[in-house]
Amino acid sequence: MKAPFSICGTAFHAPKRGELEILSDALIEVGADGGIDQILKPDHPHYDERKSAARASGMLRLLGDGEYLLPGFVDLHIHAPQFPQLGKALDAPLEDWLQKYTFPLEARYSDRAFASSVYDSLVGTLLANGTTTAVYFATRHLDGSLVLAETCLAKGQRAVIGRVAMDDIHQCPDYYRDASPDEGIELSRQFIQRLRALPGNGKALVRPAVTPRFIPSCSDRLLSGLGELLEAEACHMQTHCSESDWAHAYVLERFGKSDTEMLAEFGLLTRQSILAHANLMGTSDFDLVQAKGSGVAHCPLSNFYFANAVFPLRRLLDQGLHLGLGTDISGGHSPSILDNCRHAMTAARALHDGVDARLPAARRGAAPARIMPSEAFWLATAGGGEALDLPIGLFREGMRFDALLVDVNAPQSNITRADNDGLPDIFQKILCNAGRPNITSVWVEGRCVS
Amino acid sequence: MKAPFSICGTAFHAPKRGELEILSDALIEVGADGGIDQILKPDHPHYDERKSAARASGMLRLLGDGEYLLPGFVDLHIHAPQFPQLGKALDAPLEDWLQKYTFPLEARYSDRAFASSVYDSLVGTLLANGTTTAVYFATRHLDGSLVLAETCLAKGQRAVIGRVAMDDIHQCPDYYRDASPDEGIELSRQFIQRLRALPGNGKALVRPAVTPRFIPSCSDRLLSGLGELLEAEACHMQTHCSESDWAHAYVLERFGKSDTEMLAEFGLLTRQSILAHANLMGTSDFDLVQAKGSGVAHCPLSNFYFANAVFPLRRLLDQGLHLGLGTDISGGHSPSILDNCRHAMTAARALHDGVDARLPAARRGAAPARIMPSEAFWLATAGGGEALDLPIGLFREGMRFDALLVDVNAPQSNITRADNDGLPDIFQKILCNAGRPNITSVWVEGRCVS
Ligand SMILES: [Zn+2]
Ligand SMILES: [Zn+2]
Repeated sequence: MKAPFSICGTAFHAPKRGELEILSDALIEVGADGGIDQILKPDHPHYDERKSAARASGMLRLLGDGEYLLPGFVDLHIHAPQFPQLGKALDAPLEDWLQKYTFPLEARYSDRAFASSVYDSLVGTLLANGTTTAVYFATRHLDGSLVLAETCLAKGQRAVIGRVAMDDIHQCPDYYRDASPDEGIELSRQFIQRLRALPGNGKALVRPAVTPRFIPSCSDRLLSGLGELLEAEACHMQTHCSESDWAHAYVLERFGKSDTEMLAEFGLLTRQSILAHANLMGTSDFDLVQAKGSGVAHCPLSNFYFANAVFPLRRLLDQGLHLGLGTDISGGHSPSILDNCRHAMTAARALHDGVDARLPAARRGAAPARIMPSEAFWLATAGGGEALDLPIGLFREGMRFDALLVDVNAPQSNITRADNDGLPDIFQKILCNAGRPNITSVWVEGRCVS
Repeated sequence: MKAPFSICGTAFHAPKRGELEILSDALIEVGADGGIDQILKPDHPHYDERKSAARASGMLRLLGDGEYLLPGFVDLHIHAPQFPQLGKALDAPLEDWLQKYTFPLEARYSDRAFASSVYDSLVGTLLANGTTTAVYFATRHLDGSLVLAETCLAKGQRAVIGRVAMDDIHQCPDYYRDASPDEGIELSRQFIQRLRALPGNGKALVRPAVTPRFIPSCSDRLLSGLGELLEAEACHMQTHCSESDWAHAYVLERFGKSDTEMLAEFGLLTRQSILAHANLMGTSDFDLVQAKGSGVAHCPLSNFYFANAVFPLRRLLDQGLHLGLGTDISGGHSPSILDNCRHAMTAARALHDGVDARLPAARRGAAPARIMPSEAFWLATAGGGEALDLPIGLFREGMRFDALLVDVNAPQSNITRADNDGLPDIFQKILCNAGRPNITSVWVEGRCVS
């Protein structure tokens, strides 16, 4: 169904941090431009009339029994070129994993045809899993990275995309690095400008990001040049920050300051910056991130494998930081933000209770650290939208219509409804067990894309 | 396809603890009785001839590109009656969760029709997720528990089933407990005998287990009577053991001995006993379990929610304990053993690295604790079979043919193959991302059941 249209049924969303709101039998009117024009509750005086009118004109999508509308998921951190190694090579620590598996794979995206084939499969997979917005690291190739942007435009996925800058001769291999700081800056500038000018991107469905891989990969001059570029272009910025013991200690040793502090010094911490991971940040780092208005992409599955500690999500949720979820493909082995909601809950439980049974319970964990399903859901939707400063992630007039339909009765469903389930129960069951088979329709900007 | 038949293709299994073995283009001959008659590798002198003969007689299943055979999954711990609350009510600690949600639900299985409807849906869901053997807690109702056995027989799932014994007046609610120790013992005896005599159970596809819920639910007299019953009936036994701080401390306080020691004293620790969880066991407890030959059902997802610590899986794998995986529905919110493989890996990583970033890395975790994908896979298949002392979980002549077919190219698949993936890579990708849509056929005892 093509916008304009109306959808009538029950929607789950979390407009406020951690609070589930249920819109029962709402009539959501999507305008021709792909935005939400109006949301009418059943007690609205014109509800019946407008619903009938939409039906009469063949523009009503009436949800059936077991169908629920959710905001589209936002993946705040994903490495598009790593998709071919999704689910393999998880046996190495971060620095080995990069050199042995990841850089050789990323180097292949100088080949436009290879890039096109992988990105087509990736974007299709993400949309099918309900990811309507993705914040991508591409590779250091200008053309290859533009292929990702073209793919998102063609398939209709909202995206923020970065051409990866990396020039440090000690941390980057000869065969895969920017030849100089100037090359890194210049290619980043060209990428931003060419992406913005792509045919079909008039509404900026796809946006650019300044993207230093992480401080260890970049020379000082590259970092400061990227800071200047960020100011000049006023776009998004993304990087990894304090992910693992190794990465955190490396920056401390090189500069005598933390990752976060150095990003701020280089002019890279802004309201539109997304920092992946942040597991090893200290209190003053988090305060600095909050003061700058930057966001953190929490990647719980990847963190189990590479981060050496659990991100203190509960604390930062309460502090009010901008926060969302990332799959961190392929450091994280799942393309599903729903999977990452579940891992966010289990990671938070592990931090709360601790892990080592030989310690007394009182000294085992770092309680309180639990999060609720509604908080994981907020991260996956409205939290991600807020972190990006984009009008997505919830159902409200003036927001874009990025959404997905969950059918709990779909073939291959692992969701089971009980006779005494209320809508909050069904929401929890969706969060725990919905999978790709349950996601039967996906819309971005009012366009049905999966 | 009905046995006898032959399957020709590539199979993954782990006959030795933690070691993946790949049977490339093997010809597996399944006999009319549902057992594996012979496995021929391509270099076998009669391979071509036997393959041609099977094809000529219409009894050959030739695997296509992207199809792989795996042993069926063994779920060592699952509460069948809790299926309706799968994915909800995960917000309470264990003892509240029992009283507030779980006991009221379990009490409903006095209604045979209700039991039949839930169990039909549950067993279908488990089979579709590749669980060919399940070790079930039913409820305390004799008839309701027999309905579960009948359902497994009708649908062809291998199962070990226990009618739950529980009589402690302080820990069990009035509306849901055995009226006396004698009643608990007598109903357990009747259940065992009636289950064994069920029509269609001549080959003991479904087997009974003596099932005290856990020590806190049972009087001393009930426990000792169940120990005698176990000796008399020589069947399986299952219970919860040292799951949480509360449960572990309760038994220590009541008896001055650990959960494990008391189970041994009551005659409940045997080669055919399965202990769920065991997170809080000490070294001497584990040694006792090993000396008795009993098995542990590791339930990693449930443990994140209810166990207050991570089971030290790495250590017990190395020690050689009998071990397998359990979903612990609905303490665990997923019906999938594959999901639990993934949670076993993330839990082991959390134990290895620790969780609290404020501690120095050296004091954060309890390394070494990581497990490999092949170890999770062994737990899910051969490990579970060994723990149950049943001839299942791997492909070998004389074993039963319990298996599943994974199609990495199935519609809705989240598995992506790369041009340079070898078979070990594909195995890892299956373990990380296969889901219900990928499981296209399931066999138990040579019978296609899903
Ligand atoms: Zn990353
Ligand atoms: Zn249990």
